[in-house]
Amino acid sequence: MSKIPEIAKMIMDKTMAERSFGEGHESAQPDRCVIIAIVKKIKEILFPFLCGNGERENKEKLESRIVKDLEDISESLIQQTARALSYDESSKGMKYDERLEKAKGLTDEFLRRIPCLIDLLKMDLDAAFDGDPAATSKDEIAYCYPGFSAIETHRIAHELFVLGVPLIPRIMSESAHSETGVDIHPGATIGHHFFIDHGTGVVIGETSEIGNYVKIYQGVTLGGLSTRAGQALRGKKRHPTIKDNVTIYSNASILGGQTVINEGVVIGGNCFITESIPAHVRVVYDSPKIRHIPIEKDD
Amino acid sequence: MSKIPEIAKMIMDKTMAERSFGEGHESAQPDRCVIIAIVKKIKEILFPFLCGNGERENKEKLESRIVKDLEDISESLIQQTARALSYDESSKGMKYDERLEKAKGLTDEFLRRIPCLIDLLKMDLDAAFDGDPAATSKDEIAYCYPGFSAIETHRIAHELFVLGVPLIPRIMSESAHSETGVDIHPGATIGHHFFIDHGTGVVIGETSEIGNYVKIYQGVTLGGLSTRAGQALRGKKRHPTIKDNVTIYSNASILGGQTVINEGVVIGGNCFITESIPAHVRVVYDSPKIRHIPIEKDD
Amino acid sequence: MSKIPEIAKMIMDKTMAERSFGEGHESAQPDRCVIIAIVKKIKEILFPFLCGNGERENKEKLESRIVKDLEDISESLIQQTARALSYDESSKGMKYDERLEKAKGLTDEFLRRIPCLIDLLKMDLDAAFDGDPAATSKDEIAYCYPGFSAIETHRIAHELFVLGVPLIPRIMSESAHSETGVDIHPGATIGHHFFIDHGTGVVIGETSEIGNYVKIYQGVTLGGLSTRAGQALRGKKRHPTIKDNVTIYSNASILGGQTVINEGVVIGGNCFITESIPAHVRVVYDSPKIRHIPIEKDD
Repeated sequence: MSKIPEIAKMIMDKTMAERSFGEGHESAQPDRCVIIAIVKKIKEILFPFLCGNGERENKEKLESRIVKDLEDISESLIQQTARALSYDESSKGMKYDERLEKAKGLTDEFLRRIPCLIDLLKMDLDAAFDGDPAATSKDEIAYCYPGFSAIETHRIAHELFVLGVPLIPRIMSESAHSETGVDIHPGATIGHHFFIDHGTGVVIGETSEIGNYVKIYQGVTLGGLSTRAGQALRGKKRHPTIKDNVTIYSNASILGGQTVINEGVVIGGNCFITESIPAHVRVVYDSPKIRHIPIEKDD
Repeated sequence: MSKIPEIAKMIMDKTMAERSFGEGHESAQPDRCVIIAIVKKIKEILFPFLCGNGERENKEKLESRIVKDLEDISESLIQQTARALSYDESSKGMKYDERLEKAKGLTDEFLRRIPCLIDLLKMDLDAAFDGDPAATSKDEIAYCYPGFSAIETHRIAHELFVLGVPLIPRIMSESAHSETGVDIHPGATIGHHFFIDHGTGVVIGETSEIGNYVKIYQGVTLGGLSTRAGQALRGKKRHPTIKDNVTIYSNASILGGQTVINEGVVIGGNCFITESIPAHVRVVYDSPKIRHIPIEKDD
Repeated sequence: MSKIPEIAKMIMDKTMAERSFGEGHESAQPDRCVIIAIVKKIKEILFPFLCGNGERENKEKLESRIVKDLEDISESLIQQTARALSYDESSKGMKYDERLEKAKGLTDEFLRRIPCLIDLLKMDLDAAFDGDPAATSKDEIAYCYPGFSAIETHRIAHELFVLGVPLIPRIMSESAHSETGVDIHPGATIGHHFFIDHGTGVVIGETSEIGNYVKIYQGVTLGGLSTRAGQALRGKKRHPTIKDNVTIYSNASILGGQTVINEGVVIGGNCFITESIPAHVRVVYDSPKIRHIPIEKDD
């Protein structure tokens, strides 16, 4: 026990080597828990019946709950955005008050986009219901499909990403990744009627562009061809473009910023694609020969 | 900030387009959190020593805790089932009181099956311990193997599914999916001594049938061949049948409702199987040729 | 409802068949929740700025918080280790007091290693930032990259594993597995500047040895060739050795205790490797022929 102050001092030294203290003008850091709570509250507005304790609210009660929730979201998001702006190159010189002002504008703009998110998400629900024979109702999908939950978080995070809010969209998308196994970078552009089935292991990179009516299964990667150049590639288009009405079966990988999967293509399970595919074809491997080796009793 | 009432009104309009209000006879929705808490409490009964704060209870205390827990589970499950029955075609005309009565019967029947679940899960523990050289004790498996946790939830959810309880089994299985990366539809039929190692990315579809002593590794899919027909396929057998003593190594995919993997088969890693396999063979690919390309210093 | 006491009795009978009661000398079990809370608190010390509510602490406040946290960690870890030692062969005869004494020594030794963990983790952050064009800052990685979070937990769990603490390291690593989809057995030896991108589905077995500057993508398995011998293989080297500067792209599997991937090798996506690879080569498959099958309108 007596070793503890000594260990604490070593930890302090290592921490201070990285960060300065007590400068006064250094702002607080974003709070991961608050950001995750904001996502949860936004989702409770997007589908107000399928949340909370399930008690049916009357119209007046529901409307006043939504107003209250929007106010809470607004307040939290302004504060967290003001903190996160310290990570933004163009806001770096700003004082906290200036960042707070900028955060208010960004949050206002975000809130105005929420009704459109509802429209988009209803189309995603339609796509999931039409696409999955195991779905017994749209409520079932909204309640518990991880792919849908990941898309919901993505559509929220993407709006903030497009508005130029730093860090927060990524914290949101990685919390969805943790919950669902679906890793969608908030920068990815995704059209309407998008459906991810099962979802675990799906990776959709930052510069991916996905059209409308696209369907993706578990383990699919839309990734980069190589990342050896590391930070030098930042901002460049390095992930594929997927056009409308494409279906990509489980564990297929589609790599590269120049790779375009054209309209109506069906990519078979496990395919490894690094070049563009013309419209309206199904892509399969020549099935590798499967060998059957008899198993002896004591094998 | 002043925009908020206006945004709330737009959200209300979109919400009201979907659902009616204040009709009185409309019941409350199932509560996801309560359902997840029910699963947790059932698990605390199945392995009463490996839960709570770990303090050892004496026999009397333990028995009265189990009685108390069963009463709590019963009460919660009745209420949630009554709510969920609004999603059931055959219960649709029922008043809430009638649904409550039906929910009582279903819950009673479920509780009676809990002792059998303990027997099944002990066999699953045996299979995991025998099958994994990294396991140092059965308690270790019960404490922390995600594959075991997913099977535990599945066996609970499956009983409710078989009894015809709507929605709740799926909420349970998707919460296990989120926690473990293992996606087992509650409809899947699974024999005794079942073992899933590592588990992340495993998908087992609704109409899969799995025999006894089956062992599955991470990333394995038991899936459908195509889901283009969508809802028209609902209820049809579209996932494979796996007979006794089959082992399926990591990332193999076995697809199709007519596909039968017969007794004692070993499916190699990454195999993509869409047709039946006769008993007692090992299935491998002709290894694709691997090429070694020298890497230059500045490559 | 009246069936409940009867069901409870059946459950008790099954439980008693496994464990004895009231022997007095039987100790309490480890508490999973407390162990997960310990990991969280250690992480709050490793990166003290990126936790809590984000408020900036001054130097004095921070140092006293770290002292307090270390004391809490110490107390909890001693108690949980004393409990866990009942799973240790060599501690089996010990009374609780003796185990408590042993637990104190182990915990002291662990705490002393925390400053070194900080150094290692800073190198892991560097590797992630240099390796991922999507990373905009090291804080972003520390805040939300699941691969980094899994490595952080692994480095903690591995120290305890090396000290011979039973069960607890595995509970820690499986909680990281649940949160991140990355399954690293606490026994695996991993060098500095280690980076896992995306992470979901990664499996790193108990006897894997990984050098410095290694980079791994989602879905990669470092596994055993076969586990048919089950418990007989316990403790044997059954997972591969990966030398310095190796990159392994997504969904590749490298299997077997004799398999060595030598320095500077790049393993292509989806490769299935069961034999050693010489230094400084890139390993790829002869691309299987892809076929394009035209899709008819009503296909």
